[in-house]
Amino acid sequence: MPTAVEAAVLAANEAFYAAFRRRDAEAMDRLWARHAPVACIHPGWDALRGRAPVVASFRAILGADPPKLSCRGATAHVLGETAFVICSEQVEAGGPRLIATNYFVKEDGAWRIAHHQAAPVAGAVAEEDDAAPDDEPSSGGLLN
Amino acid sequence: MPTAVEAAVLAANEAFYAAFRRRDAEAMDRLWARHAPVACIHPGWDALRGRAPVVASFRAILGADPPKLSCRGATAHVLGETAFVICSEQVEAGGPRLIATNYFVKEDGAWRIAHHQAAPVAGAVAEEDDAAPDDEPSSGGLLN
Repeated sequence: MPTAVEAAVLAANEAFYAAFRRRDAEAMDRLWARHAPVACIHPGWDALRGRAPVVASFRAILGADPPKLSCRGATAHVLGETAFVICSEQVEAGGPRLIATNYFVKEDGAWRIAHHQAAPVAGAVAEEDDAAPDDEPSSGGLLN
Repeated sequence: MPTAVEAAVLAANEAFYAAFRRRDAEAMDRLWARHAPVACIHPGWDALRGRAPVVASFRAILGADPPKLSCRGATAHVLGETAFVICSEQVEAGGPRLIATNYFVKEDGAWRIAHHQAAPVAGAVAEEDDAAPDDEPSSGGLLN
């Protein structure tokens, strides 16, 4: 079971994918950090640095018939007032499976996203599309 | 100019690539966090979660004639006692150019790496190999 903090981070992570699925650019904008540094590396892209280009990139992507995207197997790894989440991104059934890291920072009492990087897993394809997105993400439970 | 904190993070980032170039598995091991959660996503791989599998993966890679690898254009983005660095990885002249995020955490007074993700930039190739690695990484200077 995730801790309360991990659960809050995972909820923020799921909100990111929910905004993507709804193509809700306003919600996406609100999810990104306002005070912390912001960056993003879309699959195959070079890095975008700064809140304005990152939010603009999502507006363009969400306005251009983006693929269905869900997040599975998310694990949250908390480091003080920041955290990173690792999850699989299922683009569409039979399409490539991506692996993503989302970095969060706690600002004004909310977990906001500061950085996103996603890239394909070599040779991996998405699972069948009839499976529901992962509703019970697990906590990290890492060895250290 | 990077701040003193950014410079320290960038030095830790450069130590990561220096250990890789020297194929120094012991140094690589020492650079990874001991207390914070540890994970790694090598290019095309699925995620490794936990210090033991991550360090073992680097031992295997460094023991198997890895490509020459240098880091260029690094920017450090500090969030309290954590930071992320974005940089280009030049694998070899004419080979694919990768883009990486390295996530650091301050532990026992040292910046240690907690997570690494690297992936190719679509269509981008490495620059000529006679250029020196970037000796003057820049700070973030992000809009927010």
